[in-house]
Amino acid sequence: MVSEFEFIDRIKSKYALHRLGDDCAVLPKDAETDLLVTADMLVEDIDFRLAWTTPEFLGHKALAVSISDIAAMGGSPNWAMLSIGIPESLWNTDFIDRFYAGWFALAAEFDVELVGGDVSKVPDKLVIDSIVGGECHKGKAILRSTAKPGDAIFVTGTLGGASGGLKLLENGIRFDDSLPLKRRDLILKQLQPRPHLTLSNSLIILDIATSMIDVSDGLSSDLTHICSASGVGASIELTRLPIEPYLGANFPADNCIDMALNGGEDLGLLFTVDRKNISLLDSLPFTNIGEITANVGVIELIHDEVTTILEPQGYRHF
Amino acid sequence: MVSEFEFIDRIKSKYALHRLGDDCAVLPKDAETDLLVTADMLVEDIDFRLAWTTPEFLGHKALAVSISDIAAMGGSPNWAMLSIGIPESLWNTDFIDRFYAGWFALAAEFDVELVGGDVSKVPDKLVIDSIVGGECHKGKAILRSTAKPGDAIFVTGTLGGASGGLKLLENGIRFDDSLPLKRRDLILKQLQPRPHLTLSNSLIILDIATSMIDVSDGLSSDLTHICSASGVGASIELTRLPIEPYLGANFPADNCIDMALNGGEDLGLLFTVDRKNISLLDSLPFTNIGEITANVGVIELIHDEVTTILEPQGYRHF
Repeated sequence: MVSEFEFIDRIKSKYALHRLGDDCAVLPKDAETDLLVTADMLVEDIDFRLAWTTPEFLGHKALAVSISDIAAMGGSPNWAMLSIGIPESLWNTDFIDRFYAGWFALAAEFDVELVGGDVSKVPDKLVIDSIVGGECHKGKAILRSTAKPGDAIFVTGTLGGASGGLKLLENGIRFDDSLPLKRRDLILKQLQPRPHLTLSNSLIILDIATSMIDVSDGLSSDLTHICSASGVGASIELTRLPIEPYLGANFPADNCIDMALNGGEDLGLLFTVDRKNISLLDSLPFTNIGEITANVGVIELIHDEVTTILEPQGYRHF
Repeated sequence: MVSEFEFIDRIKSKYALHRLGDDCAVLPKDAETDLLVTADMLVEDIDFRLAWTTPEFLGHKALAVSISDIAAMGGSPNWAMLSIGIPESLWNTDFIDRFYAGWFALAAEFDVELVGGDVSKVPDKLVIDSIVGGECHKGKAILRSTAKPGDAIFVTGTLGGASGGLKLLENGIRFDDSLPLKRRDLILKQLQPRPHLTLSNSLIILDIATSMIDVSDGLSSDLTHICSASGVGASIELTRLPIEPYLGANFPADNCIDMALNGGEDLGLLFTVDRKNISLLDSLPFTNIGEITANVGVIELIHDEVTTILEPQGYRHF
């Protein structure tokens, strides 16, 4: 079966679509500015379960994933559209008002204006398409395709938290204010993830990042996206990974490593910088996890001086 | 139960969203140009049935409805995003390639570039969110909210054809090249509707239209949208309606009138012009069906010197 990434590559090649395949499309806006646009579809029982979340969290997350795409290009979000397909059973409840309340709380924080969208009935499962528009300085969007061998690889935040939260939910634990912090925090990372927009908009990243993506599919997959787009490889060191600290309190060590490597939805940023600029990031909350290599398409994972090959095992629909 | 239109009005008021409620959102682009953006969700078994259409027609229609929204603002489309939620059973067929073939055929005709979107799995029913971006001269978008009492009301094309095609499909007739023209043409108006972009971009409409909308929900509903947004009423004459000629060959006269008044998806344009400018449209393929009145919120239908009140009976999801 063709994967969704192979399918997109095929369409891109067949119809000569050069703007496809990054976190956002980059379009000309005015003399100083490029327009960034992104769309993310969230589907009930594929991307979320209504019994595991709240309408407010879901509204928040629908917007957060798209703001994160704007962040991953080094841009600032401005406006959004929301297309929502709602089953009749939910229309007649307070779901929709609570969903928009969660959406608008995050929109207010990042100064995003709702400008349009669509409301449709669906036969069964809720579906949301989140569209966000933003901008960046002309020609300054930070792409996936511009990492160079020798560049250092950095991540923001911690890895695996959202995946750990998902595992707790799968194990029957539900969000509740009275949960112990080590569980509550993980579940919130899954249900109410925060885009790292302030970090991505720090002047130093805009200035020196050579490539960037958000960690939405999982580190192994998202680093593969950068390597494929840039025609490079990568080498990362296991002991340097900023594994989410609360994971260890809930899961065996091997699971924690797997979640940090392959768990998606953390919405941290994965970016590269020329090695000569590493010292500029010294006092900042970024973690250097390895470096870009000329070993095209291969991601090496180093642990105890043993090197293994890391395959992309993050989330994919097909 | 609150209708989808009441819901959108409530959100618009609650969160002070002044850009919501027209065919497209109008956003500042550069010194000479405004950006137009629109999103339309199409859901299997709500908006279409896979057994009644072809993948190519569906791809065409998904783009056509959004181009029509750009046309309705007096704009030109430039780029598009496509979010598609696909059940696994369809992913493993030629559906997706044929869907994109239909989409790209129309995109090529109107010079629309695919710049992004999302591909997701869905548990069951296919869902498509079609996003199109375009532009118009700064401050020149033709809104729903600017019709004035005394303005003449015009439509492009004919009314009721897409609705007639839907009725034939509901009656078990399927598209086939060997169908007699009077049936084939109606079904094509339903399955493969054409946006009236060339007409909406004629200089004379851009110059003199005081308000515009596309006929997507149905004349009675779309004229109600203009009247509500503009704070006016309308009076239309039944004998002036350009009822789709092939309807009469397939349905009783009363049904034809109902389809012309309430059938959606024709993708013609409904626009108003100051009465003093009517003569400028004399030689053009537009039909004057009535006039805007000061009778706020009331649409009068005149037939044989008898006036009845026309209620919005076009399609709505909720």
